[in-house]
Amino acid sequence: MTGTVYLVGAGPGAPDLLTLRAARLLERAEVVFYDALVHPDTIALAVNAHRVDVGKRSGSRATAQRFINKRLIDAAHKYAVVVRLKGGDPMLFGRAREEIDALQQAGVTVEIVPGITAALGASADLGVSLTERGISRSVTFVTPRISNESADTRASNWALAALAADTAVIYMARGQAAAVAATLIALGKPAHTPVAVVENASRTDAVKRIGVLGNLPALAAQLGGGPAIIVMGEVLRNATKTSGAIDAIVATTLSSLQG
Amino acid sequence: MTGTVYLVGAGPGAPDLLTLRAARLLERAEVVFYDALVHPDTIALAVNAHRVDVGKRSGSRATAQRFINKRLIDAAHKYAVVVRLKGGDPMLFGRAREEIDALQQAGVTVEIVPGITAALGASADLGVSLTERGISRSVTFVTPRISNESADTRASNWALAALAADTAVIYMARGQAAAVAATLIALGKPAHTPVAVVENASRTDAVKRIGVLGNLPALAAQLGGGPAIIVMGEVLRNATKTSGAIDAIVATTLSSLQG
Repeated sequence: MTGTVYLVGAGPGAPDLLTLRAARLLERAEVVFYDALVHPDTIALAVNAHRVDVGKRSGSRATAQRFINKRLIDAAHKYAVVVRLKGGDPMLFGRAREEIDALQQAGVTVEIVPGITAALGASADLGVSLTERGISRSVTFVTPRISNESADTRASNWALAALAADTAVIYMARGQAAAVAATLIALGKPAHTPVAVVENASRTDAVKRIGVLGNLPALAAQLGGGPAIIVMGEVLRNATKTSGAIDAIVATTLSSLQG
Repeated sequence: MTGTVYLVGAGPGAPDLLTLRAARLLERAEVVFYDALVHPDTIALAVNAHRVDVGKRSGSRATAQRFINKRLIDAAHKYAVVVRLKGGDPMLFGRAREEIDALQQAGVTVEIVPGITAALGASADLGVSLTERGISRSVTFVTPRISNESADTRASNWALAALAADTAVIYMARGQAAAVAATLIALGKPAHTPVAVVENASRTDAVKRIGVLGNLPALAAQLGGGPAIIVMGEVLRNATKTSGAIDAIVATTLSSLQG
């Protein structure tokens, strides 16, 4: 008798953006393995579970991932309901493939419970739709691969994908804002393209800054140490106008770039 | 005294993929305007609300949208808690911009409650992560613009965005599968690129077909009348191997294309 491992998306940060299905699974869980970015109130829903923090990774990422895989397999041989809780959605930048493969190779049943990804939390925070009739019919979610701090003008797949879409959302760009902006501008994206950075999307301590690609590094420098994503595209053009519900916006306009 | 209009994502289809926040708002709502694709069990959570179906659109889409905008504004002048319930996420292919603009111009406060978008429901159904280390670091969500039934090889922004990303998810492609495949192949995408079509993602009546771009029209022809999306990319390469939990897969391989 082997248990089931549920790969569960915890959503973008706010605990009440968890799904009903995830909440019920957490209540039933006998053990929960959770990442660093999951809100404590979400973990607290697992009232009957052993709660295991696997977010503090030691050694290389590959070593840490193998260790997590092994712990999930071991748990499935001991418990019927094993929850693997990940920030956002498991299937978007969640390394789900590696865990699914390891579990299935060990004969363990895996079920996926989707979660709201950070881009949609950020979009709601900004009050800006990622698609818009006549403006944007494509949105790319991408992580940059930056080899050094300068612009990378070689044919960067990540950058070409970001440039080809009407709206781009760049995940896990913390600390790389300067290189991201330099690369995109070097590949032809205008420096006055509207951008936003959102830290701690959907949480009460979310921080949002809106400006243009040319001053993205300065915008990013205003963030704290939380997870952050970058949104880029014409859908942001009127963001300062429609951000009535947003507290922390500093609109940084073209004039500041030119000044 | 004007009420607040909440633009709420109902998620991809399964009623228990609603968020806790959305469920609580529905319980508090005095009126709910819902789209055609929202599950009846989700609407039923609005126990105290007038429930208004605005999914059956008459006349042109623009006329219908203006009518919805007007009803939302009128409701905000009568009720404190107005919920506008949309399938998926409001900010991805949900025409949120038009409703936000109309409400804000009328002085009505708008809040956005994100939902799980169809792509993530489909990804979970398929058991296939949209990103994968070494395979995919970019995912584009796009709607096609097809002018006729043949391939559109002019510089189609939607197609270029789909081609530039490692993984593409094509929304609202119902009935356009032949033109989508022809356009992408004409622009250079190999006919043996793995694709999947998922109808009624996340629901118990979901239908999934996996194959290659060259026989996408045949795969799509096997679907019923529900909402459907297309997934394309190398992340699907091993989908037939890892789809232990999927009942309805018909793996259509290269050989069938060649045969």
